[in-house]
Amino acid sequence: VAESFGDRIADQVATRRSQLVLGLDPDPSRLWPRALELADRAGSPSAPSAERAARAVVEHCRLVLAATADHCVAVKPQVACFERLGAPGWGALQQVIDAAREHGLLVIADGKRGDIDVSAAAYAQAFFGQTPTPYGPVPGLGVDALTVNPLLGLDALAPLLGTARECASGLFVLVRTSNRGASDLQDRLLAEGGSVSERLAEMVVELGGPGIGRSGLSDVGAVVGATAPERLAALRQAMPHAVFLLPGVGAQGGRIEGLEAAFAPGPAGGLVSASRGIVAAHEQSGGEPADAARAQAERMRELAWGIAG
Amino acid sequence: VAESFGDRIADQVATRRSQLVLGLDPDPSRLWPRALELADRAGSPSAPSAERAARAVVEHCRLVLAATADHCVAVKPQVACFERLGAPGWGALQQVIDAAREHGLLVIADGKRGDIDVSAAAYAQAFFGQTPTPYGPVPGLGVDALTVNPLLGLDALAPLLGTARECASGLFVLVRTSNRGASDLQDRLLAEGGSVSERLAEMVVELGGPGIGRSGLSDVGAVVGATAPERLAALRQAMPHAVFLLPGVGAQGGRIEGLEAAFAPGPAGGLVSASRGIVAAHEQSGGEPADAARAQAERMRELAWGIAG
Repeated sequence: VAESFGDRIADQVATRRSQLVLGLDPDPSRLWPRALELADRAGSPSAPSAERAARAVVEHCRLVLAATADHCVAVKPQVACFERLGAPGWGALQQVIDAAREHGLLVIADGKRGDIDVSAAAYAQAFFGQTPTPYGPVPGLGVDALTVNPLLGLDALAPLLGTARECASGLFVLVRTSNRGASDLQDRLLAEGGSVSERLAEMVVELGGPGIGRSGLSDVGAVVGATAPERLAALRQAMPHAVFLLPGVGAQGGRIEGLEAAFAPGPAGGLVSASRGIVAAHEQSGGEPADAARAQAERMRELAWGIAG
Repeated sequence: VAESFGDRIADQVATRRSQLVLGLDPDPSRLWPRALELADRAGSPSAPSAERAARAVVEHCRLVLAATADHCVAVKPQVACFERLGAPGWGALQQVIDAAREHGLLVIADGKRGDIDVSAAAYAQAFFGQTPTPYGPVPGLGVDALTVNPLLGLDALAPLLGTARECASGLFVLVRTSNRGASDLQDRLLAEGGSVSERLAEMVVELGGPGIGRSGLSDVGAVVGATAPERLAALRQAMPHAVFLLPGVGAQGGRIEGLEAAFAPGPAGGLVSASRGIVAAHEQSGGEPADAARAQAERMRELAWGIAG
């Protein structure tokens, strides 16, 4: 049996002694100043604004990675932030993924994709696999995992999971998101019992069953907002083998304390994701952005490691 | 008051006497042969496969548009099919959008996006608005509408709608999709009464209220699969002002007959979307792909127009 994504995460967490996921949501208007200097040096001032901004975004992400990667287990680029820069932005996403790999990090693309079978298969090619063409195959981004939206049901997730599994990659299914509006639908109770989120948890279990590795972790994980820790224990019981991706720590108000239930299956049971809390740490603490980010990443890593143990 | 998207659709449907939406889901392995000839003539054989495939995809979509645009009111590119070709694919998407506009068609990007506020705002910049950067603004794709996923709730859709509304553009919210797996969640009944889809319909009404134009149509529409016509009447009653985007006709088994309820608010109340049914019509009928596509588009347009009247 080929290695599974769950085992890869378990190994990676153990080796790096970290559950911290660096979220990369680059805003071209708020890049580290040093990134703009590096981009100016490397690029032509007559290039289109999209190309210049994409270059600066890459430099920024490289600097953030250089400062914090030692404390992280994975990186989570927000696809929207690259997509808004058009074709150069998509190229920047690939470069940032490559840079994260050079630091030994897993890559979780935060795309929240979801579509009917044939379109889901196209997304699978874009993120995990490759696309056959008359000119030879076109490789996808080659990420280790993708966040996916389960509203369309199991048959819409199947092509994504099939391709991911072939590559020992995985999915993180939205189960209970970190935003306030999550209550508009996800918290509604079903006539059959349980909430919409709990129904989504059942889907995670069904999809993930065949993907449980020797570590006890599956290749189908769940996105569970760190802003609702009171729900964690119930969701952990419902999904005993799922890796929980826990966004919302820091800028969105979530705290690492209270996430203990996520780690019931072991240290890799929960991945704590933070974006602005790390990248913009200097806005709180002062000092150089890289120093503040490194210090904040170290703090968060130690806090999570302590709770997971 | 600036023009609203609902009014723009109503005018466009009346002017072009069509409710037909051309779905463009280009598969590089199944492009029209003529597109490959044109791409070979224009491109370098030493270019990377992604660039060559993207060029062929653009030629293919241009040929399909030239053959069928007269019978259509809008075009619906499936973003996944472009994304899988990387940066050149994103460039191709922009070129296909430009080509559709030259034919006078509205553009509905089928991206099914949905994310928390700050990321939703980034998607809004990518599809409707522009992104401020130190090098000047980077324009987005400039589409007229985007399909969106409502699982994350109202606050996640608000930034997309805000930007869309500023541009007299609109959203199509997934309410009841055309795939079998839609029953896994969307058809579940809620303890408070009604199904998940009916709850999503309430969200469409709430979001769309302030966007109802003089035509009586709102800038927040609903994706309702044409494969479940028995649900149409109830959903129409729940969402009296929403334009229904009706995918699934043709390859997915849906039929235009039975869609009458969609058109209750007027001829623009329903947009009938077909992709493979038009582009691959020659596989059924024989003959040249362009001739078969044109004939099929004409048939579907007349069928829909007859039912809407």
